[in-house]
Amino acid sequence: MRECVYPAEESVMRHAQGKERWTVPAEVEELKEEAKRRGLWNLWITRDLDPGHDGAGLTNVDYAGLAEVLGAVPFASELVNCSAPDTGNMEVLLKYGSEELKRKFLPDLLSGKARSCFAMTEPAVASSDATNVQSTIRREGDRYVLNGRKWWTSGAMDPRCSVMIFMGKTDPSAPRHQQQSMVVVPMPSPGLRVLRPLRVFGFDDAPHGHAEVELKDVSVPASHLLLGEGRGFEIAQGRLGPGRIHHCMRLIGLAERSLALMCKRAKQRVAFGKKLEEQGTIRADIARARLMINQTRLLCLDAARAIDMGGPKAAREAIALIKVAAPQMAVWVTDRAMQQVHGAAGFCDDFPLSFLYAQARTLQMADGPDEVHLESIARMELNKHKQD
Amino acid sequence: MRECVYPAEESVMRHAQGKERWTVPAEVEELKEEAKRRGLWNLWITRDLDPGHDGAGLTNVDYAGLAEVLGAVPFASELVNCSAPDTGNMEVLLKYGSEELKRKFLPDLLSGKARSCFAMTEPAVASSDATNVQSTIRREGDRYVLNGRKWWTSGAMDPRCSVMIFMGKTDPSAPRHQQQSMVVVPMPSPGLRVLRPLRVFGFDDAPHGHAEVELKDVSVPASHLLLGEGRGFEIAQGRLGPGRIHHCMRLIGLAERSLALMCKRAKQRVAFGKKLEEQGTIRADIARARLMINQTRLLCLDAARAIDMGGPKAAREAIALIKVAAPQMAVWVTDRAMQQVHGAAGFCDDFPLSFLYAQARTLQMADGPDEVHLESIARMELNKHKQD
Amino acid sequence: MRECVYPAEESVMRHAQGKERWTVPAEVEELKEEAKRRGLWNLWITRDLDPGHDGAGLTNVDYAGLAEVLGAVPFASELVNCSAPDTGNMEVLLKYGSEELKRKFLPDLLSGKARSCFAMTEPAVASSDATNVQSTIRREGDRYVLNGRKWWTSGAMDPRCSVMIFMGKTDPSAPRHQQQSMVVVPMPSPGLRVLRPLRVFGFDDAPHGHAEVELKDVSVPASHLLLGEGRGFEIAQGRLGPGRIHHCMRLIGLAERSLALMCKRAKQRVAFGKKLEEQGTIRADIARARLMINQTRLLCLDAARAIDMGGPKAAREAIALIKVAAPQMAVWVTDRAMQQVHGAAGFCDDFPLSFLYAQARTLQMADGPDEVHLESIARMELNKHKQD
Amino acid sequence: MRECVYPAEESVMRHAQGKERWTVPAEVEELKEEAKRRGLWNLWITRDLDPGHDGAGLTNVDYAGLAEVLGAVPFASELVNCSAPDTGNMEVLLKYGSEELKRKFLPDLLSGKARSCFAMTEPAVASSDATNVQSTIRREGDRYVLNGRKWWTSGAMDPRCSVMIFMGKTDPSAPRHQQQSMVVVPMPSPGLRVLRPLRVFGFDDAPHGHAEVELKDVSVPASHLLLGEGRGFEIAQGRLGPGRIHHCMRLIGLAERSLALMCKRAKQRVAFGKKLEEQGTIRADIARARLMINQTRLLCLDAARAIDMGGPKAAREAIALIKVAAPQMAVWVTDRAMQQVHGAAGFCDDFPLSFLYAQARTLQMADGPDEVHLESIARMELNKHKQD
Repeated sequence: MRECVYPAEESVMRHAQGKERWTVPAEVEELKEEAKRRGLWNLWITRDLDPGHDGAGLTNVDYAGLAEVLGAVPFASELVNCSAPDTGNMEVLLKYGSEELKRKFLPDLLSGKARSCFAMTEPAVASSDATNVQSTIRREGDRYVLNGRKWWTSGAMDPRCSVMIFMGKTDPSAPRHQQQSMVVVPMPSPGLRVLRPLRVFGFDDAPHGHAEVELKDVSVPASHLLLGEGRGFEIAQGRLGPGRIHHCMRLIGLAERSLALMCKRAKQRVAFGKKLEEQGTIRADIARARLMINQTRLLCLDAARAIDMGGPKAAREAIALIKVAAPQMAVWVTDRAMQQVHGAAGFCDDFPLSFLYAQARTLQMADGPDEVHLESIARMELNKHKQD
Repeated sequence: MRECVYPAEESVMRHAQGKERWTVPAEVEELKEEAKRRGLWNLWITRDLDPGHDGAGLTNVDYAGLAEVLGAVPFASELVNCSAPDTGNMEVLLKYGSEELKRKFLPDLLSGKARSCFAMTEPAVASSDATNVQSTIRREGDRYVLNGRKWWTSGAMDPRCSVMIFMGKTDPSAPRHQQQSMVVVPMPSPGLRVLRPLRVFGFDDAPHGHAEVELKDVSVPASHLLLGEGRGFEIAQGRLGPGRIHHCMRLIGLAERSLALMCKRAKQRVAFGKKLEEQGTIRADIARARLMINQTRLLCLDAARAIDMGGPKAAREAIALIKVAAPQMAVWVTDRAMQQVHGAAGFCDDFPLSFLYAQARTLQMADGPDEVHLESIARMELNKHKQD
Repeated sequence: MRECVYPAEESVMRHAQGKERWTVPAEVEELKEEAKRRGLWNLWITRDLDPGHDGAGLTNVDYAGLAEVLGAVPFASELVNCSAPDTGNMEVLLKYGSEELKRKFLPDLLSGKARSCFAMTEPAVASSDATNVQSTIRREGDRYVLNGRKWWTSGAMDPRCSVMIFMGKTDPSAPRHQQQSMVVVPMPSPGLRVLRPLRVFGFDDAPHGHAEVELKDVSVPASHLLLGEGRGFEIAQGRLGPGRIHHCMRLIGLAERSLALMCKRAKQRVAFGKKLEEQGTIRADIARARLMINQTRLLCLDAARAIDMGGPKAAREAIALIKVAAPQMAVWVTDRAMQQVHGAAGFCDDFPLSFLYAQARTLQMADGPDEVHLESIARMELNKHKQD
Repeated sequence: MRECVYPAEESVMRHAQGKERWTVPAEVEELKEEAKRRGLWNLWITRDLDPGHDGAGLTNVDYAGLAEVLGAVPFASELVNCSAPDTGNMEVLLKYGSEELKRKFLPDLLSGKARSCFAMTEPAVASSDATNVQSTIRREGDRYVLNGRKWWTSGAMDPRCSVMIFMGKTDPSAPRHQQQSMVVVPMPSPGLRVLRPLRVFGFDDAPHGHAEVELKDVSVPASHLLLGEGRGFEIAQGRLGPGRIHHCMRLIGLAERSLALMCKRAKQRVAFGKKLEEQGTIRADIARARLMINQTRLLCLDAARAIDMGGPKAAREAIALIKVAAPQMAVWVTDRAMQQVHGAAGFCDDFPLSFLYAQARTLQMADGPDEVHLESIARMELNKHKQD
């Protein structure tokens, strides 16, 4: 981080706002090679995922610590091939893909040559409820034909993006959680159009982008189906376990960075004759930020430990808890850093804070609003008292 | 609003994001003419400001209601020549400008032909404390020479911007609140460079912009001084009274709009088999939004009433209170509307919410962080118990 | 207040904790006589309630200001015959009572000789939903026979309590809001037993008490029925309008007192080498308290104005809003005063704060939890968008 | 807990409110004997404190789990001789007491025959700042003479209380943290008067009580000095480490109990046609309670682990964090359980909630307001950036 990432931050972020922003800066590809040389590559492949020994054999607890460090700079995860949605997509291919699919798509993803996207959310329906999906996947002979409109398909704007995992309904008459399937779609494909990048608070997250995508009679070989018809919901659930922990740990790194920026600025600025660091309300918020960060980190590590010991199912409650806690914490800490000690400056591009804030808000929405996760937690809690 | 403003909203906002965004859309100028025809022009000139009867003779309470209505659409105030920072700048010219200055600068501003900016905040110091200003205003013969770097100079990017009110120190050795002066600077002027637009989150607020501006030996006639040397702080204080009420009432209009969007969306969307409007936490937040909006409106009207009856000084506590309350309320309501019922969609440009959110955050910062206003309120409160 | 009430506070409150606490201190009765002499008596009888000119002819807005002043000391309202639940009960008798009932019960209540209680809440059911009531009122010849168990019957422990208004079901098969009726019950009555005082936290609110009461075959003349069979719910609704405003304004007086105690203490105490009043977080909370108090007061006065101009129905939204806002505000302000500047001392009886806190919490519960009122507000808000 | 404590809860708590409440119920002494028989005695003596092998050899992490279980019932800790302030006082004697003091006072405390109190806080000064202490300890020949007024001396009302640890100044002219000393005072002693029990929200916590105590020329042998003159502050600091973790873990047990009561009640009660457990805002608060409890538990266990591994100094930050987090969490959870699902009932003695609430508030104040701990955390955090 200190030797390679922070020194590159300003120019990479500037590139992401300039006219060439939908291209990948050469600097990023060079840093990826450097990471490979240092053996810092694909560290996300934890022991449980690693039958072919492609990874570093870390536990989820080990990797969580790394994800935190990477979270401090928006593009750092990419440099070590550990960025979303690629890790989740590669994990799906590793766990649920046929040998053919692995052979076709994994090598370029694992080497960092290709990138991928995950097309689930749809503009027409409340996307936090996966059973709402309206896109269709129709069997025709030995192929599947895909139709639908997706959005928030992160990474689809990236020029290197060559794989899409697409969720749609194969059988709308099946039981509610068995209607959905997932297929792998090569990009580009005839009928697949990337329509536009969506902005989050004015940020378009170039060069990856959150895209709106249209699929009109896109046809893929039947062998591109993952796991089996009607098992899309099951894959979606499985995909979310470790990935959520990574997201949350990155948010902790992000929050640590915001807090560090807050402390530094508070030590430099003077207002009304006093350094900001001497002002009681600022000190109190620094303390609250430390409290929230430490609590959330312990909660995430507890979730990672639960996965390591019992798999994603054993970690269900823990993962629902961190999904609520981590984004709220990161949003709060970054907000305080931005508004309270940086003032107007904190909102503009001279500091990374407003971008970090938008990132934290995006992750907060990534699997539906907090309400959805609070609801799962409540259900689990009330079930503990069933026999009362 | 219904006949002219809402129908134009989509195209004006789209213009503000396109390649031509630093130009003024023709549609805006046409709507301004329409407003003049309807007699809806310069309504901000309330009775107390109106020796020359240029305005409509409204009280501050009357105008507050209008400001709320205008606040629902970001560019609505401009259409009736009631937008910041022009109203504040015209008010300063009306109250503190010599006849010469009024003659030179007011007509074009009052007719809407010209726009203006207010250059106070500086990148190098905590700007919430006006005594921190480091820019200089040096007398040389019958001219003043201005030097300094300013930012958050809203409106300076606008192609129509032809007047700047500039704050700097004429005498750094004077008592703390008598070092500052204000002068009027025509734009363009030799030595005055508009460097770049600052973004708030990812929004650049085109075509007005929040600019960083550099003044290097900019020379203006001595007659461009406002009120007198050392009276800049006094003007700044006076400028903030009614203007803050306008800002806050616009925020109420903004919040009403967010709440209306929240209710509409909650009536349409279904998640987990229930309409959003039937979900308890969403209902509770709708209720809290109504509560916060009504409380804040009453507080703003109370401040307007205080100004109407006793002038800005009598309204000091009330104005400090609304400065804290109105932005916090608008930020909260818009946040809930955005995140809780619109989900990811709420963050992108398909809805006005993320832009409204950024606006509310910008106004929250406009005169320094909440801490500064809470501090003034506390001082006034504790002073009531001096003799205890 | 300054001449009579504050000087008596310590001894009256001490009496309320001593062995004789279930008796009325002579001092209170003397102060009531003094209030009558000064013409400060039954001021709660506002114009709209006053066909017989028993009151002072105040508007609800006028009286709201008085209620605030009285709210600063727990027993002050009683001294001017303006305390709950007597005002509500007298109002019910004035508005819905037959001439016979008025003649029998009003004079002693109006003169302050008698006190009264209101028996609605029941231990067995969620009392915020008035349709849950299980007590029965059975017609037998020219009498009604009452059965049921009530609690939180405030004032029933008072030795002067001689009137109970009792709610029960006359017809459980009627539509949901027409099953309930109200009757007036003289106290004592055969079959009516006051079982025990309930404590709020550790406070029993002697000498009035919040009682649990049992009615076993209590028989009253049929003429004691108020308004008509099946109209109990209607009376309960009507009873709540002005009374809620009084409650809320008393809470504002209570909060003003807490804030004043907070400021005074902050000016006296030193910790870690600084006066508490100089500490930033304390100043910020003093400011927030001032903000919340002023906002809530304006909201209450707005509700009072709505009643004055359009009656209780026109004030429905406003009253639901203050029911949420006023107790939350009073609880928060008192909590901050208690914990943050008084420390452990704030929790004990050496300061009135812990008792004020318990009072505010009691009023917060008095018509059901906040959820119930937020739900009404949400319903009204969403209805505004019905045609969208 | 299930076999012995819960069955006794109702009668022990009733005893604590009755006329005999300042005596110890026989049931408690019997349960203590039962605990000894079961080997559940003095489990608080963790390995690090245990040179004489009087304890069970638990780590702080081990004991933390027990403290949580005990925290669910207010008197449970006493039954296994693990209640405050005895554990802290015994720890002080073990660590800092001479052999003479240990011989004189420890056996009866360790056997549960005697109880003790800790006299530090004073009514005249802000007690969160230990250097404020005004009581005096004067050497006279081979004795010390003690003078001062203390309050919040928990346990001093207990008829078994026979040991006081008293803090006062031996040398007001020494450096700020070396003026204080601690001595052991046998109770009763001539000149030592227990003046009155202080109530917390109306609760007097009989039979232990929080007492105001006066010492007038109380004389003790010089050998009763702990550790050395001027080392009182040092002892106070050392005393707070593990004890704070115990307190916080008890608060977690308390909160778990409140949450369980909340869930049970929510499953039983019906309001407005729906079970409370089906109402969205209640479900959301149940989820938030689970989140806060789990986060806080992990934080406390992290602090315990830090003590186990590096002693109290290594745990400084962690302990300051839990001091803020645990009481706030317990107060919030209990408040929600009390108000939101129990309604008015939650505030009275029919449920343990209001007493648990007062307990949580008392512990929140026990070492000064949250501000004090937030301030320490901020100082540590800002120090991490000293060289920036």
